[in-house]
Amino acid sequence: MSMFNNVPKIAYEGRNSKNPFAFKHYNPQEMVLGKTMEEHLRFAVAYWHTYVASGSDPFGVGTAVRSWDSLSPLDKAKARVEANFELMDKLNIPFYCFHDVDVAPEGATLAETNKNLDIIVSLLKENMKSTGKKLLWNTVNLFTNPRYVHGAGTTNNAEVFAYAAATIKKGLEVGKELGAENYVFWGGREGYESLLNTDMKLELDNLARLLHMAVDYAKEIGFDAQFLIEPKPKEPTKHQYDFDAATALAFLQNYDLKPYFKLNIEANHATLAGHTFEHELRVARINGVLGSIDANQGDLLLGWDTDEFPTDLYTSTLAMYEVLQNGGFGRGGVNFDAKVRRSSFEDEDLFYAHIAGMDSYARGLKAAAKLIEERVLDDLLEHRYRSFREGIGAEIVSGKATLKSIEAYALQNNPIKNESGRLEQLKATLNEVIFSV
Amino acid sequence: MSMFNNVPKIAYEGRNSKNPFAFKHYNPQEMVLGKTMEEHLRFAVAYWHTYVASGSDPFGVGTAVRSWDSLSPLDKAKARVEANFELMDKLNIPFYCFHDVDVAPEGATLAETNKNLDIIVSLLKENMKSTGKKLLWNTVNLFTNPRYVHGAGTTNNAEVFAYAAATIKKGLEVGKELGAENYVFWGGREGYESLLNTDMKLELDNLARLLHMAVDYAKEIGFDAQFLIEPKPKEPTKHQYDFDAATALAFLQNYDLKPYFKLNIEANHATLAGHTFEHELRVARINGVLGSIDANQGDLLLGWDTDEFPTDLYTSTLAMYEVLQNGGFGRGGVNFDAKVRRSSFEDEDLFYAHIAGMDSYARGLKAAAKLIEERVLDDLLEHRYRSFREGIGAEIVSGKATLKSIEAYALQNNPIKNESGRLEQLKATLNEVIFSV
Amino acid sequence: MSMFNNVPKIAYEGRNSKNPFAFKHYNPQEMVLGKTMEEHLRFAVAYWHTYVASGSDPFGVGTAVRSWDSLSPLDKAKARVEANFELMDKLNIPFYCFHDVDVAPEGATLAETNKNLDIIVSLLKENMKSTGKKLLWNTVNLFTNPRYVHGAGTTNNAEVFAYAAATIKKGLEVGKELGAENYVFWGGREGYESLLNTDMKLELDNLARLLHMAVDYAKEIGFDAQFLIEPKPKEPTKHQYDFDAATALAFLQNYDLKPYFKLNIEANHATLAGHTFEHELRVARINGVLGSIDANQGDLLLGWDTDEFPTDLYTSTLAMYEVLQNGGFGRGGVNFDAKVRRSSFEDEDLFYAHIAGMDSYARGLKAAAKLIEERVLDDLLEHRYRSFREGIGAEIVSGKATLKSIEAYALQNNPIKNESGRLEQLKATLNEVIFSV
Amino acid sequence: MSMFNNVPKIAYEGRNSKNPFAFKHYNPQEMVLGKTMEEHLRFAVAYWHTYVASGSDPFGVGTAVRSWDSLSPLDKAKARVEANFELMDKLNIPFYCFHDVDVAPEGATLAETNKNLDIIVSLLKENMKSTGKKLLWNTVNLFTNPRYVHGAGTTNNAEVFAYAAATIKKGLEVGKELGAENYVFWGGREGYESLLNTDMKLELDNLARLLHMAVDYAKEIGFDAQFLIEPKPKEPTKHQYDFDAATALAFLQNYDLKPYFKLNIEANHATLAGHTFEHELRVARINGVLGSIDANQGDLLLGWDTDEFPTDLYTSTLAMYEVLQNGGFGRGGVNFDAKVRRSSFEDEDLFYAHIAGMDSYARGLKAAAKLIEERVLDDLLEHRYRSFREGIGAEIVSGKATLKSIEAYALQNNPIKNESGRLEQLKATLNEVIFSV
Repeated sequence: MSMFNNVPKIAYEGRNSKNPFAFKHYNPQEMVLGKTMEEHLRFAVAYWHTYVASGSDPFGVGTAVRSWDSLSPLDKAKARVEANFELMDKLNIPFYCFHDVDVAPEGATLAETNKNLDIIVSLLKENMKSTGKKLLWNTVNLFTNPRYVHGAGTTNNAEVFAYAAATIKKGLEVGKELGAENYVFWGGREGYESLLNTDMKLELDNLARLLHMAVDYAKEIGFDAQFLIEPKPKEPTKHQYDFDAATALAFLQNYDLKPYFKLNIEANHATLAGHTFEHELRVARINGVLGSIDANQGDLLLGWDTDEFPTDLYTSTLAMYEVLQNGGFGRGGVNFDAKVRRSSFEDEDLFYAHIAGMDSYARGLKAAAKLIEERVLDDLLEHRYRSFREGIGAEIVSGKATLKSIEAYALQNNPIKNESGRLEQLKATLNEVIFSV
Repeated sequence: MSMFNNVPKIAYEGRNSKNPFAFKHYNPQEMVLGKTMEEHLRFAVAYWHTYVASGSDPFGVGTAVRSWDSLSPLDKAKARVEANFELMDKLNIPFYCFHDVDVAPEGATLAETNKNLDIIVSLLKENMKSTGKKLLWNTVNLFTNPRYVHGAGTTNNAEVFAYAAATIKKGLEVGKELGAENYVFWGGREGYESLLNTDMKLELDNLARLLHMAVDYAKEIGFDAQFLIEPKPKEPTKHQYDFDAATALAFLQNYDLKPYFKLNIEANHATLAGHTFEHELRVARINGVLGSIDANQGDLLLGWDTDEFPTDLYTSTLAMYEVLQNGGFGRGGVNFDAKVRRSSFEDEDLFYAHIAGMDSYARGLKAAAKLIEERVLDDLLEHRYRSFREGIGAEIVSGKATLKSIEAYALQNNPIKNESGRLEQLKATLNEVIFSV
Repeated sequence: MSMFNNVPKIAYEGRNSKNPFAFKHYNPQEMVLGKTMEEHLRFAVAYWHTYVASGSDPFGVGTAVRSWDSLSPLDKAKARVEANFELMDKLNIPFYCFHDVDVAPEGATLAETNKNLDIIVSLLKENMKSTGKKLLWNTVNLFTNPRYVHGAGTTNNAEVFAYAAATIKKGLEVGKELGAENYVFWGGREGYESLLNTDMKLELDNLARLLHMAVDYAKEIGFDAQFLIEPKPKEPTKHQYDFDAATALAFLQNYDLKPYFKLNIEANHATLAGHTFEHELRVARINGVLGSIDANQGDLLLGWDTDEFPTDLYTSTLAMYEVLQNGGFGRGGVNFDAKVRRSSFEDEDLFYAHIAGMDSYARGLKAAAKLIEERVLDDLLEHRYRSFREGIGAEIVSGKATLKSIEAYALQNNPIKNESGRLEQLKATLNEVIFSV
Repeated sequence: MSMFNNVPKIAYEGRNSKNPFAFKHYNPQEMVLGKTMEEHLRFAVAYWHTYVASGSDPFGVGTAVRSWDSLSPLDKAKARVEANFELMDKLNIPFYCFHDVDVAPEGATLAETNKNLDIIVSLLKENMKSTGKKLLWNTVNLFTNPRYVHGAGTTNNAEVFAYAAATIKKGLEVGKELGAENYVFWGGREGYESLLNTDMKLELDNLARLLHMAVDYAKEIGFDAQFLIEPKPKEPTKHQYDFDAATALAFLQNYDLKPYFKLNIEANHATLAGHTFEHELRVARINGVLGSIDANQGDLLLGWDTDEFPTDLYTSTLAMYEVLQNGGFGRGGVNFDAKVRRSSFEDEDLFYAHIAGMDSYARGLKAAAKLIEERVLDDLLEHRYRSFREGIGAEIVSGKATLKSIEAYALQNNPIKNESGRLEQLKATLNEVIFSV
């Protein structure tokens, strides 16, 4: 039986194919910079958007039409497991990601919820074994249930903190059971609605306490996944504590958590915070914490998280450039934290959308590789910063210079001649590279 | 002789005055929470906006009409010194702030520039002695001159770095000479126009090197001012390294600079970064780095730094609340980094504007003091977070709890009952407080 | 029986009351500019936010706890009617507003839906008769149901257009039955997700056709309510056709609809469109189409419609200033299109929130009246534009001047002397006015 | 003698060229949809950005290094004329655009200013005759001079209005003398800084009066250029009257000016107003007022007019799609209202930048032509809206349907079945089209 009856198995059919369901650019076996595209890209399906989301928005109920719509909660959960492995198979996607409540229904008590989870986790494990598919990361949802109305790790209510902590414990166990490569913390409610009724210091201290407990427990049970924090500036809260990469870094440093965490950077979260995606990746990279990405895109004229499938080739190119400069993803990957538009409510749209995203990242990867292979930016940077490799520049970089020694130098009135940064030429070159791969 | 002939000495004349030039709310001697308003607020004039700015904007030349407009550079510099002490006297403002190029004209060489500076600094010192006025902070301008087109501490050109470093050395000497309470670093060009041609890691390393050199030299010459970094997210560059308070903190921590620096938080920079002013102050406060403020306001419907004089009482109240909770400004103060509108081009406008700002902060101070005296927020917070002072909450806070011990607790199914955050009531209360002082 | 057991009847108790539920500033009988506050303000409850909304957001389910939560759809609808009149009574609010689906559950067919509506409308009518409460406006919801996924009047599917039109017919009949003072059109889905698959011209033509049909039918049945269009720039669609007041005006003019429509201006929609609330009101006023307002407020650092209860006194003052200059609301009023925060989930919050909003508008009314009575702005404007009442200015205004005659005048080199706009002084004055009422 | 010594004549050299100065995509003679690229694109140089702008920004003085920097005002003006025709020749650009003050220095009186203008206009005319280059449009600058501090056509000072009107008269005469194809009105100061001191109604009435005078005078002297209004939402003013295309339309309709004006749509102005460029072009197109474009691009993460050279191929494609659907530009064209970055201060950058822009529009043109030739969107739209060509849909469109007749139809409960909008597929298709030209 198929959950998506009308959808054929999708294959790479080359650029001349007329088949709208075909990949034109993502050929998993194609070699790029010494690795296959599949090894580089590590694509993952986001369970919540693909199988759970209904297309509702603040002004409208769901529109999606799925074959499991009429089933009871547990049967629906089982059907979605089937759908997951069918879609991964048909699209040749190797990884998936989930929150606890995406895969199994919540019960009346924590014990019952955990029991439901056990049933589904065992089903997932079975399917993973038989198909070879893997879990890029899991996490627990600490934002949808009303109990988290004032936060989870940053709630004012210790009962709520306790409940959240208990679900994280279970989440770590589930991650271990399924061999998750990463475990993600996204604090959807970890922030504030108003500073007026918020003790920010206590809340941040508590959040750090919770993360340390998680680190300790993972060690205790031998769960060796990479831990990831996912920054987002706002929405659902007015202000979220993990605003952006730099803010998350400050937090990790402040609370001695940096050794245990990397960042999961999302494109749409970057732009909501006023940054480009590549900026956030660069900040993470040069600080050694680029972990994984949530590949989607926002609409810069809209002020909320639209979570669109990524199709902008400028962004996918510059994102993959940072990833390649990082030496690749390591245990991370490209999670499509993206939802089909509310108006794309048919099963086929899920497939079109993933193909659009995978093709865009395939192109981005190839363009980024070309930038690196042809040393387009490396040569430019080497030339541009050459003055710091000799004379006074070298003294500055080596730490030998002082204000006094530098002033003595400056008073000699050496001619200062700057050179053009040549941005317009560079942007034309970037167009050539992206549109020639 | 007067630089501002038409402007009388301004005085506190009480609420019923018909004199448009009078303060209605700022009475320097009025006691608030055990200190005079003057001791709390430590107002400062921004030299650049008040005496140098012409009212030009990207689409128009200057409009300001000043008595010194036709003078030669050095005479103009001297006239502005006179104007500064006249305005401070008439408005009863105790402090001022400046960049090197605000007070003295640049010469053809560094040596000549320094000579010009010496002439004016000596004049400033004389006036300070005779009037008792003080320097809240000084700094050097590393953004206007074309040499800084690619940055100063983060330039790609070592010659430029050297020049910048030499002016900082002079700036520290000037600060010491004038007894500056603080020394500010605002990196107007320390950022990038595009990541494509930027070595972000080297640039940040160099910026840190420059700051360490400054720390060392200040120590060497016995200049004991508080060092301040001023965050701003963008403008003039597309992206500035000191984006916001959290980013500046991450930088200071990364490079072992935190012991030597606090932050100078500007209202308009906060909103450009997507934060409220009070958020940035809170972040600085709970991290022990709230140093001083640039009191102005932006227009949240505009995307650039409008640097308006502060008149929004909500903001001045919540800002002063953070300052009072911080135990006051310490060596910092309220610098009016604000400019009269281009359409307010007459001398009188400078006075109206400062009065508007000082009255707004006077009201903000009183409202904030009332919030604290009446424990409006303290009682609320104490009640709201009470669950962390007993039982499982206390165990969490004390560090005794582990995920295991907490799960055992959570599995008992204690009822979770949240309480309303009462934001609407709180906002009505805030209106009552602000509009009753 | 009471729907809100814990909530007493709220009364105006004067400024010294300690009762947190009391109005401090809204005294319905107080005279302002020759009318009672109640006559000026014409407050209305928004049925959807107050009785229907659950506090859900894109990342969380509902949090609100209401006494009717467990009832069946029709019983719930009846309970909400009771709640409505109880809340209006306790808060002394004279008007309410609703969409069809707010008051009655949708049935399986249009006929069944209409039948449900008839039941509730009759109940509403009965209650209105016994209490004297009135309907400020009604409308039909053309955005929540999945059928409107591609629009209603601007759908690509004629079946959907037909369904929408039929519900509007019913809406007009309901409005007539209940004596609605206005009938509102808000096109939540009348816009596009992408221009790529949109025939904008056909969609706008169709929307105009629909509005003309509504005008014709209202005439036919003798429903004499004022028709209102409510602009909003985006959300839920990427781009909505009634973007702002000016866009709505262009549309009305284009399609000969201006004689039949005024605008319902919402504060939060104004700011989402990049305007202040008072700007939108001014545009509507000087074009003779200021009809009614949706009184709420947004958060200018957030990019979505937060629909907060209005507490900002600057905005309520400047909004009421436009309304008073308009000669009042006419048949319009102040509809609280505002929802309590998700974290304000208790019954009491509904009352606190309405009191906060009503008090804020009461203050705004009084401050605006003072601005007018004391001719604060009128005198200023009269003086500022005086040059257009004589000489060349008068010739320009009267239409006698031509480019030639004006050039002849300009070539005489009359001195051009501008005067300061005195904005800083004006803003300080505004603080004084708002503060002193 | 050359103004740009180092720059060779640029030629189309095909895709394999290694010459960084060559066009790769803009071949003027290449045929697209039955016209040459040159006939379609009608490129124009913006005099102000290319020859006058210095690279200054609100925090820094100019950086540009030009051969005419040291000349006296009138000689500089003459040198710029030479530079203009040299650059147009080397880049093979057929058109240019200017404001009066770009080409000739202002004198002490209007008469002197006009005399200067006459000298330069005669030089321009001579050069145009000898080179065959043409004037796409001219205009007068009503925003830079301090006299326009409170507006020009919307000033409160009749003397200023008169001066502005006189310069417009001269501008029309200059346009006629040089055979301008269009005449543009951009109201940089036509807006307000604050509503508090603004009589919006009088200001708009006066602006309309000024435009009517211009229409009349152009008729009188037989100047038959297309008149254009250029919308911009803000900057330099807080709010500009010609906010966007729809607002400009409402204004033109209101004041009976629509027959005489079309719109000059600028990409960066569109995004500052919260719209895409293609949205503004679509609005203009379906209202019959798409006149010409200012081809540049903004940075959507920055809130000001960055006026970058256009390199985004998504935007150039969708812009040219609207233009082609409009039947081409008519008398309008592609004016590069774009400036090289402040850090691109060398002569070569002017050339690189124009090539980048021209190549981007060449690609956009070809991609748009392909969309049209292959009926990518036309077929989709025809299918998508088919229900309005038959049955109830046809009745609606023809105007036969009424709410009553439609309700009768809807009550039959015809099944409503919507179809997916297929946006993700469409965006992938768009990538294919842009990528393959």
